[in-house]
Amino acid sequence: MLLQFSPTKPLFSPPNLRRNSPAFLVSPPRSLRIRAIDAAQIFDYETQLKSEYRRSSALKIAVLGFGNFGQFLSKTLIRHGHDLITHSRSDYSDAASSIGARFFHNPHDLCEQHPDVVLLCTSILSTEAVLRSFPFQRLRRSTLFVDVLSVKEFPRTLFLKYLPKEFDILCTHPMFGPESGKTSWSGLPFVYDKVRIGDEACRNERCDKFLRVFENEGCRMVEMSCEEHDKHAAGSQFVTHTMGRVLEKFGVESSPINTKGYETLLDLVENTSSDSFELYYGLFMYNQNALEQLERLDMAFESIKKELFGRLHQVYRKQMFGEAAHSAKKTEQKMLNDGGAVPTKERPPSS
Amino acid sequence: MLLQFSPTKPLFSPPNLRRNSPAFLVSPPRSLRIRAIDAAQIFDYETQLKSEYRRSSALKIAVLGFGNFGQFLSKTLIRHGHDLITHSRSDYSDAASSIGARFFHNPHDLCEQHPDVVLLCTSILSTEAVLRSFPFQRLRRSTLFVDVLSVKEFPRTLFLKYLPKEFDILCTHPMFGPESGKTSWSGLPFVYDKVRIGDEACRNERCDKFLRVFENEGCRMVEMSCEEHDKHAAGSQFVTHTMGRVLEKFGVESSPINTKGYETLLDLVENTSSDSFELYYGLFMYNQNALEQLERLDMAFESIKKELFGRLHQVYRKQMFGEAAHSAKKTEQKMLNDGGAVPTKERPPSS
Repeated sequence: MLLQFSPTKPLFSPPNLRRNSPAFLVSPPRSLRIRAIDAAQIFDYETQLKSEYRRSSALKIAVLGFGNFGQFLSKTLIRHGHDLITHSRSDYSDAASSIGARFFHNPHDLCEQHPDVVLLCTSILSTEAVLRSFPFQRLRRSTLFVDVLSVKEFPRTLFLKYLPKEFDILCTHPMFGPESGKTSWSGLPFVYDKVRIGDEACRNERCDKFLRVFENEGCRMVEMSCEEHDKHAAGSQFVTHTMGRVLEKFGVESSPINTKGYETLLDLVENTSSDSFELYYGLFMYNQNALEQLERLDMAFESIKKELFGRLHQVYRKQMFGEAAHSAKKTEQKMLNDGGAVPTKERPPSS
Repeated sequence: MLLQFSPTKPLFSPPNLRRNSPAFLVSPPRSLRIRAIDAAQIFDYETQLKSEYRRSSALKIAVLGFGNFGQFLSKTLIRHGHDLITHSRSDYSDAASSIGARFFHNPHDLCEQHPDVVLLCTSILSTEAVLRSFPFQRLRRSTLFVDVLSVKEFPRTLFLKYLPKEFDILCTHPMFGPESGKTSWSGLPFVYDKVRIGDEACRNERCDKFLRVFENEGCRMVEMSCEEHDKHAAGSQFVTHTMGRVLEKFGVESSPINTKGYETLLDLVENTSSDSFELYYGLFMYNQNALEQLERLDMAFESIKKELFGRLHQVYRKQMFGEAAHSAKKTEQKMLNDGGAVPTKERPPSS
């Protein structure tokens, strides 16, 4: 329904527009149209029903660690209608309230809110310290624990060691961040491993509801064991970060004659340099396949250098000894053609 | 002008349509229209004038070395109306005739055609050998020599050493190839250095006419000294090729969980692996700045490894000695706060 106001005298005054407010006294421009559904939303029965349904099907998600990545994920979780509560060692209460989440300074208070899901967004390095001191006893017996670390076997092992047996465990890795997922998550890989989800339908539904956020955002959902993830990630993500950091250290700079390939390298440095060294060290230290890949990269680099210098050596030797060897060979060939004596020990002179 | 034929009886017979030819006896379909400009092109005075003008303003360009890159450039030069003749050690006569160029098996025959421009498209490595044996004496005294090598100081020096003094010299580097310039050259950098162009207007016009091909294709024209080019190229093009070759040797492969950054690396390998090792070795060997850049890349890689292992060492030491060192420090602090004796040799006990 559309209501059109005449510039001077309103035809109809919806109850939520305060007649005496100064904003209302200023006559609106000629083309102003107010959509009734926006203006009188609170009285709309349909909307009320809808938001009630949304509330009842929403998950209460506790985000542990509200840094860059935690905030990045939280925004989308809230947009999908979920109720976000959060805790961090640093005070992020302003950042939390700005996106509609509630911040708790004390993890005990957070746990007493009885979240359905606890989403671990701490750094890889602090994971064990956080788990060791976390007041699990204040959470409900049925809680879903989720992590989003860039390595997967390490948190899986820690979860199985520290978490109460009644908790569900979902290990995930959204393979994008605030940079690469700035405009859209469409087509970006989201890896997950349902490490331990109880048999009850409601537990399965809770896990699926959480995953649905990423599914609905268009992520490419990849179900994969933590072990398999770490193998693939060491060969791809860790190598990418290493190359980016090497080029950053090298100091690549835009030149007036950038080739297309070189611009690719500049982009790579821009992407990886926005991530912390902590993350890079985490990828190296907490993925058991990373050292092997670093060694392989080292060997590849050495091999290329050897090829270059080997070729150089060969060319130089040819210049130094080439002429002499060439004329010796020519003499030998001539003697063979003439049927003359061949200067080798094995062959007796022909008579 | 449009001539419409009735299906049965032609209203007008242009002189080049032979009445008794079988093709003409077959009645044409109802909608057939023949554009006079197509059908009677040879008698069209305007077209005749146009093609004569084009012939008179066309350059006769001799391409030396008709490999992958030579053919790639020749196609566009022909499209711009220039007359292409070519010579290569291998027999490329079929490749030449397929694009409308004439192939000469003997360089003497090629030179006797008196080309305006000689375009050197040989590999970096064979440049000197080609120049040493080339029959310059058969060319006209005024010839423009152009090269398109990926290094620039090296051919510049060779040209100044081997070419007759009357020849003009233009050193260029189209910074793209059959892969990166497949669909368009728009925005791709074309570097050039007018090393020696005679004062006469016709010599300048010839050089500009050659450059205009790249300008009209939309290249980003960069006038730059050969020395400056080599400095920039070692830091960008050589480093890009090195990274591509290291990753190829490492064996990067597409995984089910490619990140955006990793896909950048896969693209890089695809781009650089299509170039020969000869080219890569040329970039290294014939650019005096390349060795320094290779060493810098090596140092950057070593530095990243040191950071990773240094951090590892630090964490391990902390685990081993951390507790003991921590409690010793606490004791010392307590003694200072209490005003007690400080266990250092330098400071006498306070009384």
